[in-house]
Amino acid sequence: MVVYLDHAAGAPLRPEAREAWLRAQSMPGNASAVHTAGQAARRLLEESRERLAAVLGCGAIEVVFTSGGTEAVNLAVKGLWEARAAERDEIVLPDGEHHATVDTVAWLARRRAARVRPVALDPLGRILPGPFGLALSGAALATAIVANNEVGTVNDAGALAAEAALAGVPLHLDAVSAFGHVPVDFAAWRADARGGTGLVAMSVSAHKVGGPVGVGALVVSRHADPTPLLHGGGQQRALRAGTQDIAGAAAFAVAAELAVAESAAEAERLTALRERALAAIRRDIPDVVPLGDPVDRIPGNLHLHFPGAGGEAMLFLLDQRGVAVSTGSACQAGVPEPSHVVQALGYDDRAARQVLRVSLGRTSTVDDVDALTAALPEAVARARAAR
Amino acid sequence: MVVYLDHAAGAPLRPEAREAWLRAQSMPGNASAVHTAGQAARRLLEESRERLAAVLGCGAIEVVFTSGGTEAVNLAVKGLWEARAAERDEIVLPDGEHHATVDTVAWLARRRAARVRPVALDPLGRILPGPFGLALSGAALATAIVANNEVGTVNDAGALAAEAALAGVPLHLDAVSAFGHVPVDFAAWRADARGGTGLVAMSVSAHKVGGPVGVGALVVSRHADPTPLLHGGGQQRALRAGTQDIAGAAAFAVAAELAVAESAAEAERLTALRERALAAIRRDIPDVVPLGDPVDRIPGNLHLHFPGAGGEAMLFLLDQRGVAVSTGSACQAGVPEPSHVVQALGYDDRAARQVLRVSLGRTSTVDDVDALTAALPEAVARARAAR
Repeated sequence: MVVYLDHAAGAPLRPEAREAWLRAQSMPGNASAVHTAGQAARRLLEESRERLAAVLGCGAIEVVFTSGGTEAVNLAVKGLWEARAAERDEIVLPDGEHHATVDTVAWLARRRAARVRPVALDPLGRILPGPFGLALSGAALATAIVANNEVGTVNDAGALAAEAALAGVPLHLDAVSAFGHVPVDFAAWRADARGGTGLVAMSVSAHKVGGPVGVGALVVSRHADPTPLLHGGGQQRALRAGTQDIAGAAAFAVAAELAVAESAAEAERLTALRERALAAIRRDIPDVVPLGDPVDRIPGNLHLHFPGAGGEAMLFLLDQRGVAVSTGSACQAGVPEPSHVVQALGYDDRAARQVLRVSLGRTSTVDDVDALTAALPEAVARARAAR
Repeated sequence: MVVYLDHAAGAPLRPEAREAWLRAQSMPGNASAVHTAGQAARRLLEESRERLAAVLGCGAIEVVFTSGGTEAVNLAVKGLWEARAAERDEIVLPDGEHHATVDTVAWLARRRAARVRPVALDPLGRILPGPFGLALSGAALATAIVANNEVGTVNDAGALAAEAALAGVPLHLDAVSAFGHVPVDFAAWRADARGGTGLVAMSVSAHKVGGPVGVGALVVSRHADPTPLLHGGGQQRALRAGTQDIAGAAAFAVAAELAVAESAAEAERLTALRERALAAIRRDIPDVVPLGDPVDRIPGNLHLHFPGAGGEAMLFLLDQRGVAVSTGSACQAGVPEPSHVVQALGYDDRAARQVLRVSLGRTSTVDDVDALTAALPEAVARARAAR
């Protein structure tokens, strides 16, 4: 039995989401079809959109279903860029964003001559509203992560959105790691928005909250008009063409509702598990350095720097003991690169390869945590010896 | 019980595909993760890629999973355009392509100054290799549908690919409606390709063959280098970023294998059902005009023009009798527009609104066909009277 402590890379599918998926799949009918079967499919789709909107704090019309977080981020960043590139050419990109954002902005810089304005993180991994606001002047768009997917730091999204509104810049928030784990409220955060500026778009993903892989959504403000990535049948305000994945949408809505309903209790439970793990690890390995904000963080996220111990080696040794963790963003884990997020906290290349991300979730137990803390001292010692 | 004769808009999920999806969903683990759970997920993903490649006639490395046919078409057309736009600016677009293609090319014309070179269809809806080849000279790229999703005509894809190879132009084939219903063989069709020209890309979709909605693939030749639409973790030859939908891929592979294995027998069965329907309809409604190629067509597709009878009215009246059909591409069915495909056959606007598409599939029976032909005469008569 694997001790699965990599929930940030992919949470197990919730049984209720699986049921919703199966129920929807038993209905034939394309949501664009006119006949009764098509209408029933469309009703289920729109009901799912409303349920998701309710837990995101937005209107149903503002929910654009996508194939996942990566597509949502790409649609927001490329779409807002394309809609504004004739007027302005600068993108505000904080350090340490997810690769979906970093790579999309890099592509716009390379192929569309976008200029990139970085914003440094503070040593806890926070995007501070002051420096963020200063960077916004004259920008075409800005993007910011709500909760860092590697080190777990949760930003003050409302304050970042207020800066964007003040500067008259459209803002995309990447809430993929945050949604379902810490409070996310599009309406509250966009309170100061005006017209097509301030908070206009927010990305979320189903499989981070126990929904299926391959489903996500971009919240797009009524007042924003990003250029679509996918052209075709005119579905979803013509912002995202393609036959709509009704089963995926239904399963996402169910999973999101459950995750949000449980999140306060889960935050408490997972914080206690995390602190239990950290206390044991600090006792056994006194020079461990926990990274990210110790207070404002994703409850299930524990990010640890072990000076002198290679991340890949620790991961391999823990895996041999049946404990699955990560060195950082799963999307780059196949490539043993130093974490750009850890570097953004001020650590050098070497330190940025000596980290582990432990991510607890819905199915995590005290036994899981104890299995980790039992296995870790030897893994760290052997990784250090292997240098 | 609904008589579902709209399989072209969405085929019911095959039980074997549902099982494959559920099995895959029970494995936690992101295919990019390094630990054992991630490796198991990656193995299943790559096995599914190989199985799909085997029935598409391509190498596993050439299969790029997408969120469906629309994304595959967009990636091919926008990606090939972006990769070549510095040298050439013309896109060869036959009349009557699917909206995913038409709208993507229209967007490139509007926003990227692409020039569009149309190719007329013949009265049976065929893209003839001669005129297609003549249009290719100096083009940046060409696209062509293998089997028309509305009128059902099947083109000689190998001959179109040979023309593209001869002209040195990269060709994308939209095989979304064809795959699983008529023979599709990437390797045979691209036989004459050289370097990055000739047949380089081919789109397919899972839910047209009894797989889940929200899954598709673009076959991308080893020699082609389309610019990605989605940037991020570098998955799939860096052609399509995003956490990979392993369950979707596994279900697609299973459904595709079954569809291809059954396709010869199903073609015979569905052709007989189609001819039974057509004989009854011709007997009862002598002025019906079957559209598309009567021989080279999707076996389950019956496309009918009823002079003087509005398509929306017929669809509504049949729906009241529990028979679900379509007026054409589901993606546009919400909007009562004349069919651009029927217009491309030489019919006027009015005639292009007086059509029905009947699409039979795996679950279709003699009783379904007889229910349709029993209900149709009254529906046509009432639609004609309602003018």
